[in-house]
Parts: sequence; structure tokens; C-alpha cells
Amino acid sequence: MDETPGPATPLPGLGAPIRAGIPEHGRVPKYYAVKGQLEALLDELGEGGVLPTERDLAARFEVARETLRQALRDLLIQGRVRRRGRSTVVAGPKLEQPLSLASYTEGVRRQGRVPGRNLIGLERSAADPLLAGQLAIGVGEQVWHLERVLLADGERVGLESTYLAVARVPELDREFDPGSSFYAFLTEKAGVELGGADERIETVLASPREALLIGTPPALPMLLLHRLTRDAAGVPLERVRSLYRGDRFGFTTRLEAD
Amino acid sequence: MDETPGPATPLPGLGAPIRAGIPEHGRVPKYYAVKGQLEALLDELGEGGVLPTERDLAARFEVARETLRQALRDLLIQGRVRRRGRSTVVAGPKLEQPLSLASYTEGVRRQGRVPGRNLIGLERSAADPLLAGQLAIGVGEQVWHLERVLLADGERVGLESTYLAVARVPELDREFDPGSSFYAFLTEKAGVELGGADERIETVLASPREALLIGTPPALPMLLLHRLTRDAAGVPLERVRSLYRGDRFGFTTRLEAD
Repeated sequence: MDETPGPATPLPGLGAPIRAGIPEHGRVPKYYAVKGQLEALLDELGEGGVLPTERDLAARFEVARETLRQALRDLLIQGRVRRRGRSTVVAGPKLEQPLSLASYTEGVRRQGRVPGRNLIGLERSAADPLLAGQLAIGVGEQVWHLERVLLADGERVGLESTYLAVARVPELDREFDPGSSFYAFLTEKAGVELGGADERIETVLASPREALLIGTPPALPMLLLHRLTRDAAGVPLERVRSLYRGDRFGFTTRLEAD
Repeated sequence: MDETPGPATPLPGLGAPIRAGIPEHGRVPKYYAVKGQLEALLDELGEGGVLPTERDLAARFEVARETLRQALRDLLIQGRVRRRGRSTVVAGPKLEQPLSLASYTEGVRRQGRVPGRNLIGLERSAADPLLAGQLAIGVGEQVWHLERVLLADGERVGLESTYLAVARVPELDREFDPGSSFYAFLTEKAGVELGGADERIETVLASPREALLIGTPPALPMLLLHRLTRDAAGVPLERVRSLYRGDRFGFTTRLEAD
């Protein structure tokens, strides 16, 4: 609520009815008050600073351990703090990735971080009707499924799952280095020219398997990007599901008037 | 996990190391298995269908009430089910709003829903240094703060908080109907031409006050859009913080090659 600068001036034209029926603040829960105190402490400590133990913090703020834990959980989910071994440290700012056709690799590099990927699997299978429709291929045609954990400065931050027709890149398993940029491979080695994509952004919870692969607590909200990419001729190229840690990532975009 | 169509073919070129160090599935928690069974039930019931009681469901799936509740909580957060009075019903699909300069009003109408807004407050105050910098006005200059709950088909789905200089629209409190589109007012009545905006998208938890205003459970992940809008001359116009229920909203965008 630190968004309201200075005292509010009541408006003669808009009297009592403004807030009618909607309590302005309600009761502020205790954990939320503690969270505010913790945030001030985080600012003091600065990025990388180590927090005192839960017991010390509970004593300092004169609250129950459970109340303190709830406040810390919120800060963890928001990405204000993170675990490092047994300690809790002040986290750095979220990574801000532009929404663009550019690859993950390029976006992370632009922010001065080192991108990386760990291969989970590269397998071929037969396209089901949904996927075949999305890729404009026949049902049962062979598709690649490439799944990789995304890294920034060596830390696991996301999970990317890509489907595309084997006919597009028959030698993917032999020619592609799964630790490198897939879009760089497509455009530089496979001769594919990217045209555009339709993307959908949501917030979801990670499944237990996804949480395990990314190494996050299971209740952490994630940003899910679902993308259908076309080549320069407008022909469907790939379907991608990218899951990013909500505590480590945000996306930016520039909107223009029509 | 239903994304892998058909049996996977092992690749001769990529042997054992593919999954090295990363267990493919791990142990599937019991609540997650129950969630899968519940999802099948939701598909059977269809949108608006009423779920059996927790007790009946726990008996049907032969699990503890707490396990069942955990699965239901996940489905609630994902927007697959919703509360209606004392019952739980199958929810409809998420609203998909295009990321564009167009107003909330226009986006919701395009999806065949009726947009609405409830005024929380319209107040004037003095710009603090951060806001003054963002709006390119002097520190201490008067700004409007307009806060409204966003509705779709009468249901509360978001909260929008806008700051702009009083000098831009001195008669805002007298001329603007807070139940109508603010962008329509700006362009049609106040003679402002929109130029563009920079937007940042994150997932956050609602604060207790925000949860109260939107009427959501406090642990629900929200989509936060933070926007700085310019007019056609490139001069900063407004700062907007829009919070949307993650269980009810997704955003779409079309990306083009450079």
C-alpha cells in the first residue's frame, strides 16, 4: 500500500458512496504485518545478505514461529528471499525476459547472465490428432519431443518442452547439441526461417514431476508460456510449452497503438 | 504427462546419459493421483456441473479427507473448479485477453462477456519522486489515483490502479463515469491520443487487502501487469498496476520475426 503518496484529499464530487460496501483495509493478518517488517530488514541486508535464524526472527518480532514461517513463505514465493543450503538469503531482482521470437539463450544473455540447458530427453513418437492439427501434419507422423531444463548462471529456472515434425529436421538427434540454442540450430544449420508465433501466458502450479526437474517447492506459482511457431512461409513449425519460475522471472513487452 | 503421444523410441545416438542425474518421475504424491481422478470426473460433469461432497469423494477414491482437499485446492488455484455458495462446480475456460493497448473493456467484450467495474476510490495527492519520474512531472505535482475492481459477467476478476497527472484531466472527478472505460474517456472526451506502452508481466500473490477487494482466497496466484503508457507524442501519460485472477485469466500475444 505504499503506492499512495501523501495524504488523500477527499473529493467533494465523490462522497461517501465511493467505498460503499467494500471495506478499505479489513483486518491485516499478523503474518502480513511481520512480512512488512521482514521486507524492511531485507532492504537493510541487501542482495545476498543472510537472514537470522527463524528462532531469532520470531523472538525479534515477538511472534510465533508459525506466523514467522508464513511471512517467509510469502517472501520465498515472491522471490524476495531464497534458500541457500540451510540459510535464507536476500534474492536479487527477477530476470526480465522480453516477449519475442528471440530464443531463451538470447534473452538471458542480454541481461548479462550465462544461459544453459540440461537435456531431459530427445525422443521420437507418433503425432496424436491434437498435435498433428497444430503442426499441420498427418496423424501418426513422426515428431521429435525435446525437453530441457533452462538454466541462468547455473541455476535451474525453467523447463522447456518442444514438439516438431521429424520431417523438418530428420537428423536432429545427430546434429543438434542439446546444450546449445535450438533456434540458432534451426536457423543456422537446418535452414529454417522463423516467421512468427502465437503465444499464451498463464500462471500455473508446477506438477510434482516439473517441480522435481526444476528443483522448486511444489506450491510455487510458475509462468507458463504456450507457443505455436510458424516459419517464414506461414507453415506451423513447433509447439512449445515453457514453464518459468514465477519467483525468478517476469516478461516485458512493448505495445504500440494500431 | 499426457503430452507424450505413443511409445517413445530409444535413440541410438543418445544413450543413457540423457536422463543422468535427473529422475524422470520421482514418487507421485497421493494427492496428485487423486487430482488426476478428479480431472476425469470434471470432464464427465462438464462446465457448471456440481461436484459430490468432499466426504463422498474421499470415500469414492478411498483417501483421507485432507488428501482430497489438497487435490481440490490445486484444482481451485488452477481455475478448473470454483466455489458456488457451499458447493464446488466445474469452471469454464479461462478468459484470454490479448496483450494490447486496447482497454480491459474492449478485450472482455471481444470474448462475448459483459465488462464492468466497481469504483474503489478516486483521489488526488502529491506525486512522490518515483511516480514524478515515471510521469515526467515535478515532485509534489497533483496526481489522480483511480482504483477499480474489474468485473466480467458480474464476477470480480481483477483490480486496476491508475496514476496520472491532474493537469492532464483536471475534471476527471466530474466528467468521468467510473463504471465506464477509462481509455474511451481519455481518447473520446479528454482528447488524449494513446501512443504506446511498456508492460511487465509477473505472477504474484495477492495482498490481504487485494484478496479482500477481489474476493479471492489469499494464496491464489495472480497475474500482475505493470504498465507505463505514453501519448502519441511520446510523453508519459499514466502508470497502471493491474492484477488479474490467475485462475480466471490468461494473456495472448502474436510475435513477429524482426
